Amino acid sequence: MLNIGKFSFASRLFLGTGKYKTAEVQKQAVEASETEVLTFAVRRMNIFDSSQPDPFEDMDLKGYRLLPNTAGAKTAEEAVRIARMADAAGMCDMIKVEVIGCDKTLLPDPVETLKASEQLLKEGFTVLAYTSDDVVLARKLQELGIHAIMPGASPIGTGLGIVNPYNLAHIIEQAVVPVIVDAGIGSPKDASYAMELGADGVLLNTAVAGADQPVKMAEAMKLAVQAGKLGHEAGRTEKKFYAQASSPTEGMSQL
Amino acid sequence: MLNIGKFSFASRLFLGTGKYKTAEVQKQAVEASETEVLTFAVRRMNIFDSSQPDPFEDMDLKGYRLLPNTAGAKTAEEAVRIARMADAAGMCDMIKVEVIGCDKTLLPDPVETLKASEQLLKEGFTVLAYTSDDVVLARKLQELGIHAIMPGASPIGTGLGIVNPYNLAHIIEQAVVPVIVDAGIGSPKDASYAMELGADGVLLNTAVAGADQPVKMAEAMKLAVQAGKLGHEAGRTEKKFYAQASSPTEGMSQL
Amino acid sequence: MLNIGKFSFASRLFLGTGKYKTAEVQKQAVEASETEVLTFAVRRMNIFDSSQPDPFEDMDLKGYRLLPNTAGAKTAEEAVRIARMADAAGMCDMIKVEVIGCDKTLLPDPVETLKASEQLLKEGFTVLAYTSDDVVLARKLQELGIHAIMPGASPIGTGLGIVNPYNLAHIIEQAVVPVIVDAGIGSPKDASYAMELGADGVLLNTAVAGADQPVKMAEAMKLAVQAGKLGHEAGRTEKKFYAQASSPTEGMSQL
Amino acid sequence: MLNIGKFSFASRLFLGTGKYKTAEVQKQAVEASETEVLTFAVRRMNIFDSSQPDPFEDMDLKGYRLLPNTAGAKTAEEAVRIARMADAAGMCDMIKVEVIGCDKTLLPDPVETLKASEQLLKEGFTVLAYTSDDVVLARKLQELGIHAIMPGASPIGTGLGIVNPYNLAHIIEQAVVPVIVDAGIGSPKDASYAMELGADGVLLNTAVAGADQPVKMAEAMKLAVQAGKLGHEAGRTEKKFYAQASSPTEGMSQL
Repeated sequence: MLNIGKFSFASRLFLGTGKYKTAEVQKQAVEASETEVLTFAVRRMNIFDSSQPDPFEDMDLKGYRLLPNTAGAKTAEEAVRIARMADAAGMCDMIKVEVIGCDKTLLPDPVETLKASEQLLKEGFTVLAYTSDDVVLARKLQELGIHAIMPGASPIGTGLGIVNPYNLAHIIEQAVVPVIVDAGIGSPKDASYAMELGADGVLLNTAVAGADQPVKMAEAMKLAVQAGKLGHEAGRTEKKFYAQASSPTEGMSQL
Repeated sequence: MLNIGKFSFASRLFLGTGKYKTAEVQKQAVEASETEVLTFAVRRMNIFDSSQPDPFEDMDLKGYRLLPNTAGAKTAEEAVRIARMADAAGMCDMIKVEVIGCDKTLLPDPVETLKASEQLLKEGFTVLAYTSDDVVLARKLQELGIHAIMPGASPIGTGLGIVNPYNLAHIIEQAVVPVIVDAGIGSPKDASYAMELGADGVLLNTAVAGADQPVKMAEAMKLAVQAGKLGHEAGRTEKKFYAQASSPTEGMSQL
Repeated sequence: MLNIGKFSFASRLFLGTGKYKTAEVQKQAVEASETEVLTFAVRRMNIFDSSQPDPFEDMDLKGYRLLPNTAGAKTAEEAVRIARMADAAGMCDMIKVEVIGCDKTLLPDPVETLKASEQLLKEGFTVLAYTSDDVVLARKLQELGIHAIMPGASPIGTGLGIVNPYNLAHIIEQAVVPVIVDAGIGSPKDASYAMELGADGVLLNTAVAGADQPVKMAEAMKLAVQAGKLGHEAGRTEKKFYAQASSPTEGMSQL
Repeated sequence: MLNIGKFSFASRLFLGTGKYKTAEVQKQAVEASETEVLTFAVRRMNIFDSSQPDPFEDMDLKGYRLLPNTAGAKTAEEAVRIARMADAAGMCDMIKVEVIGCDKTLLPDPVETLKASEQLLKEGFTVLAYTSDDVVLARKLQELGIHAIMPGASPIGTGLGIVNPYNLAHIIEQAVVPVIVDAGIGSPKDASYAMELGADGVLLNTAVAGADQPVKMAEAMKLAVQAGKLGHEAGRTEKKFYAQASSPTEGMSQL
């Protein structure tokens, strides 16, 4: 089981909402993924802006934990305001701190992310923070008492996968809270790789919502996360430069 | 379904035998993998050498198709002799041609592989050939009428994974028979990647037999192959250099 | 010419000192590199600790600009103290802010790096900051008015080369001051790659000092930096998936 | 010095001709590269087809060794015919066997390459063969007595660089004749990498002729080949997972 704060999850795949062509496709993809956590941008919700559609229309939210994010915030202050609003609307089991520092890469602002996380922790939120793969920043967030860290594999929506497995491996090795790899996952192999490196979970959105067949990709991701988790636990063989016969011939009779 | 010659398979994972610590672990790993095809080195069988143990002791071979390989052969002639012996022993649904041209890398000899394949096809075998990732050699084998090609991801037993995805992609794009990626798979992400590139199946041995917990890794590989197959069918998003908001903020109200 | 603050350099290779087997080898390597900038840890200098040897014995420092670093500092305060000491000793043309946040990776502390840089800029230093490849942190340092940013290719002394070329490319694209890639360079190809991505210079130490033949490697790095700079200016061809005949055969007479 | 058959070269960069926008740019690029070997497609020469332009107009060919290639040949027979024609025209110091087996990838046909090489060696040519990075094929060519092997880094004209450094490293480790990495080089770092792996030389064309500024890129490639060669000789440091202080602080006085 994956434990974050007071919550426990059997599934290690967190799925974003939004970006689907229809609400029906989103619903089916969510079901196929078997996720237990739905994430969404508070600022796109009609709790925030009544002109926005309800992203969860027709979905029965029982059985899901809601992980609103603070996307759109560029400062800690904005992030905190967004989080409080989600909480006031009763749509905030956990909050994902997301403070963007660069419009082109949507990479997070390390200083504002720390500030927002600190404040929200004080206010009693269960806080997960989206960060770059900066090893030291991940430590600092944990020193604040954060409930999970969410380092990116690569920039949001790029599908580049895990560009820097070394940093992720260091973050995981040093982590004292769950590590959820977030952003940049492009295909099942990336999700599996994150788990093989020892991550505790994966959050993704575009890889599923932007696939030609989102429902099928959601199922693929579910399996990939399971495969990677099992692969990590099973302990892979070491990489070698020279070949090793898998059909050994030592001791064989000669032709 | 995966169709090779006259055979059809629901599973796309082929599992090698041998290299397991105990026969019991092998049996459990085979079951966990849900493979329908078992491969083994004829020269290690007691049909070939009565001093060798029976690699399949205690296993009920019903429900499996047997894919003996010609490991140990360095010439086409040797490979053909080994194949005939497996056939005579009634242990040869399909034959995997494996003619090694280099002791250090265990990479195949392209010329002898062609010769052995040609001869065995003439003799009516269902022939799969282990090759390097040489695009032109894969074409030549198909021109002979081979039933499946088995390009390596990287040298046998190295666990380096798919070193050259470009060549594999070219082989797959041009293939008119199934492509089973064989050799070098080290972890689930590699198996998934092979399938995402469009391969029809994966054959592996060391990655499972050499894992700390082979049975668990066998299950991981089963899931990874399924994830990769679904991921390929689902059509992944394109990779991008700049980030794309997965929680789009266009049209958002201002704070 | 590379311009940093009030200084101009014809060479774009900055070389670390220390870690050489002998002072003579260091001297020859420095000469072979044709560097104009020497960097060193203030805390290893006898200006700081009179029991330490003089790392520059026998070297004529005329013709070099000195770039002491604050290695060993774990807080902004320590870094500032070290910088002031170097300045007081007359050994500080420029200061490299280096505040380490993790003993295992020696990756920098983003928050303390910002603080130290801000203070030293106020005190009139020419400041270069060693950072991770965090795109937003690089922006923040530039907003402070820093004179050059020094993102790492990979952790210090690992020789892993440029693990994340995407982040480096984003940093370079957005930079308004020189970008000197620092740390992790392992071989000439890495130095060339940094320059091809558009970096303004490269700083390295272990790759030269730890080579079997440091003097020869210093010359190799000099050439690699020049090659990469020219290659960047020359504008490389685009990568392609399908081959393009370099000996075109269109319009050829038929055999 | 690089020795191939009876020839010796100070430069380890072989440059292709053709594909330049003007003859003047080609001439200047050749000079900037300091190459001693020019390669060209015989079938594009007016010795072969009088309607073709002279690719070497205005160039003084003294001081260069000519390495015509058999581009356009799809069989050994065609390649042999082309080679003889170049020889008859007095334009053939060495011959580069190039028999293409796939129009999309321009990858070589292993079987026809072997046949053509064998025949031309019998006829007394100094033979270099363009091959894939197939380790066993490289061995077979050397067993024939070939004068140099030319494995590709990636398909011709793609600029993908060294996709499979493992195979190249194995080829080089086992080689008893010079290894000239040919095809796929995209930028200086690729040329340097080939040499760092222990190659004896690099042949390229598109990377220079297709650059925005070919003359500058020619110079970059010259320097990159030198850097890589020196880097190989100098013996690089080993890659490490954990950081190693390059400004060591052990034994330092405490602040």
